[in-house]
Amino acid sequence: MRQQEYAIGIDIGGTNTVFGIVDHRGDISYRGAISTRKHKDVADYIEELAGALAPAIDQVGGINGIRGIGIGAPNGNYYKGTIEYAPNLPWKGLIPLQQLMNEKFGVPCSLTNDANAAAVGEMMYGVARGMRDFIMITLGTGVGSGIVANGQLIYGHDGFAGELGHTTIIPGGRLHKGTGLRGSLESYASATGVALTALEFLDRDPKRDSLLRNFAKEEIDSRIVYDCAIQGDEIAKEVYEFTGEVLGLSLANFVMFSSPEAIILFGGMTKAGDLILKPTREHMEKNLLPIFQNKVQLLFSELREADAAILGASALVWEAKTDKVV
Amino acid sequence: MRQQEYAIGIDIGGTNTVFGIVDHRGDISYRGAISTRKHKDVADYIEELAGALAPAIDQVGGINGIRGIGIGAPNGNYYKGTIEYAPNLPWKGLIPLQQLMNEKFGVPCSLTNDANAAAVGEMMYGVARGMRDFIMITLGTGVGSGIVANGQLIYGHDGFAGELGHTTIIPGGRLHKGTGLRGSLESYASATGVALTALEFLDRDPKRDSLLRNFAKEEIDSRIVYDCAIQGDEIAKEVYEFTGEVLGLSLANFVMFSSPEAIILFGGMTKAGDLILKPTREHMEKNLLPIFQNKVQLLFSELREADAAILGASALVWEAKTDKVV
Repeated sequence: MRQQEYAIGIDIGGTNTVFGIVDHRGDISYRGAISTRKHKDVADYIEELAGALAPAIDQVGGINGIRGIGIGAPNGNYYKGTIEYAPNLPWKGLIPLQQLMNEKFGVPCSLTNDANAAAVGEMMYGVARGMRDFIMITLGTGVGSGIVANGQLIYGHDGFAGELGHTTIIPGGRLHKGTGLRGSLESYASATGVALTALEFLDRDPKRDSLLRNFAKEEIDSRIVYDCAIQGDEIAKEVYEFTGEVLGLSLANFVMFSSPEAIILFGGMTKAGDLILKPTREHMEKNLLPIFQNKVQLLFSELREADAAILGASALVWEAKTDKVV
Repeated sequence: MRQQEYAIGIDIGGTNTVFGIVDHRGDISYRGAISTRKHKDVADYIEELAGALAPAIDQVGGINGIRGIGIGAPNGNYYKGTIEYAPNLPWKGLIPLQQLMNEKFGVPCSLTNDANAAAVGEMMYGVARGMRDFIMITLGTGVGSGIVANGQLIYGHDGFAGELGHTTIIPGGRLHKGTGLRGSLESYASATGVALTALEFLDRDPKRDSLLRNFAKEEIDSRIVYDCAIQGDEIAKEVYEFTGEVLGLSLANFVMFSSPEAIILFGGMTKAGDLILKPTREHMEKNLLPIFQNKVQLLFSELREADAAILGASALVWEAKTDKVV
C-alpha cells in the first residue's frame, strides 16, 4: 500500500511563523509556531524551523511521507521562489527562500505571498469552495489580498499581483509610513489605520466626550475602538463608519475590475462584525455601476485565521506549477 | 477542398456600427459601417445590418463560408449574449442580441463588451501578441478596459469584468452625468473629461491668457485642447498634465491589482502622444510600490481603432466557449 502523503504548510508573518502538517482533505494533524522576528539571519531561522518541524515530520512517518512544503510569506514571489524586499520581515533584500528550504529539507517547496495562500485555503476548504471568481481581503495589521478569476489565482506577470492594500483610495491622503505612499487602502482599513483614524477624530473635536479618552493615545488600538463602539461610544462608531466608507469604496473599485461572485473578508478586523460590515456593504453598493449592484456577496471567512494560511500554503504543494518561470 | 472560413466582426458604438469580414490570419477583406443611433428599434437595426452585410457575405462565397459572428458592444454580456442597460445605445433595457442575430443569420454568434473585444484583437494581432498579462485601456469618448490575466480575458462572475473607467479615483470628485458616480476615471481621462478639465481650468483663472479663449466654450473638445497644447498654450498643457496625473494614479492601482506586463492605451485620446503619455507614466510610477516600479510597459496600440474592434470581435468566433452559462 502506498504511504499516505502529507504537505507542510508554513505561514510566515512579521512576528511569528505558524506551520502545520496537512493531508489531502485539509485536516491539520500538527500545528506549531516559531518566532520570525528574532532571526536576523534567514539561515538561523530555517535552522529553528527545521528543529520545530522535526517531531511533526516524524509523527507522520518521516520525510518520505512529505510530498512538499508550501509557504505563504509577505512579498513571496510564486514564480521565482523568493521573498523580495519585505518591509515587515527581518531579512532584507532578496531572499531565495524556496532554494534554501529545498536544500534543507530535500523536498519540493513552493512559495507565494501570504494573502494569496489564504485565498487558496479559502477556495479549497472555506466559504469560497466552488467559486471561480472571488477576492479575498485580509484586514489585519496590514491589508492583503488574493484574487481568483476563472478559477485561478491571479499572480500577474511577475508573481506579485493582488497588492490591493496599497492601491490609492484617497489621493493625497494619509501617509503610509511603511511605503511612503499617500491615501492607500491599508493606511485606513488596517487595524493600524483604525487606531490612527480614532486619534484623528479625537484631535479634530477635542471637547467632544468619548470613552476613548479614558485611554492613553499610544494605547489606543482597533480592539479598544471596537470595545468603545459596542458600548455605544459615538466617536468609536464613527471610526468604523468611516473605515467602512473607505473600504466599501475600494471594494466597489475591485468589483468593477474583476467582477467577483464574492468578496471574502478575513483577519483580525473582521471581529468587529456588523460594525465594519454594514458601512462597508453600503458604500460598496452605492459606488457600483447598476449592473454590479446587489450581486456581490460580502462574506466573512469561516476559517480560523492561522488555519487558512497553513491550509492555503499546503495547497500549493498539491497544485501543479506548469507555467513556472525559474 | 474545404471552403475557406471567415468570421464576421462587428463593433457596435453609440453612434456607428462598423463591421468586417476577417480570415484566420486577421486579414480584413471587407469593411462597412451603418448608423447605430438612428435605429430606436433593435429589429430595424438588425435588418439594416443584414442588408449591409449581404454583399460582403456574397463576396466570400455566401453564408456557408461564415463560421460565425463576433460582436463587441457596450455592456455586452459574454455569458448571456445580451446587451444590458447600455447608456449610450438607443435600445433600452435588456437586449438579447445574440439570439436575435442567430435567428437572422443562422450562424453562431458571440458577444462581449467593446473594450474586451479590442483587448482580444490586441492580443491576437497587435502589440500584446504573446503577452499573458496585460490591460487594455480605451481612451475615447468614454474610458473602457479589457483585462487579460494568465492568458485569458477576465470576464468575471457575470461577464462584466473590466469596467475600469467607472472606478473611483477622486472620491467626491467630478460628477459623471451618465452614471451619477463622482470622481470616476472616465469623468477625467475621457475626451469629454479633457474638455471639462479645460473649462474648469479656464474658469478657475479667468484673467489668465490662453489660446483656448479663442473658442466658444461649447466648442472646446479634446482635439482643440490638443491643438492649443502643441502650440505651447500653458493652460492646455496643464490640462494634459492633470489628465495624465489622474490616469497614472489609476493605472498604478490597476498594476497593483493584476500585475500586468504592459498597459496598452488605445483610442482617440492617444493621438495626444507624449502630451498624455509622459505625465501618465510619471504618475503611474510614483504611485507604485517599489516591487512594481519600472517593470510595466506603457504602450500605445498600433492597430487602427476600427480594425482592433473588428478583429477582436471576429476573434470571438475562433475562440471556443467551453464554460459558457446560458
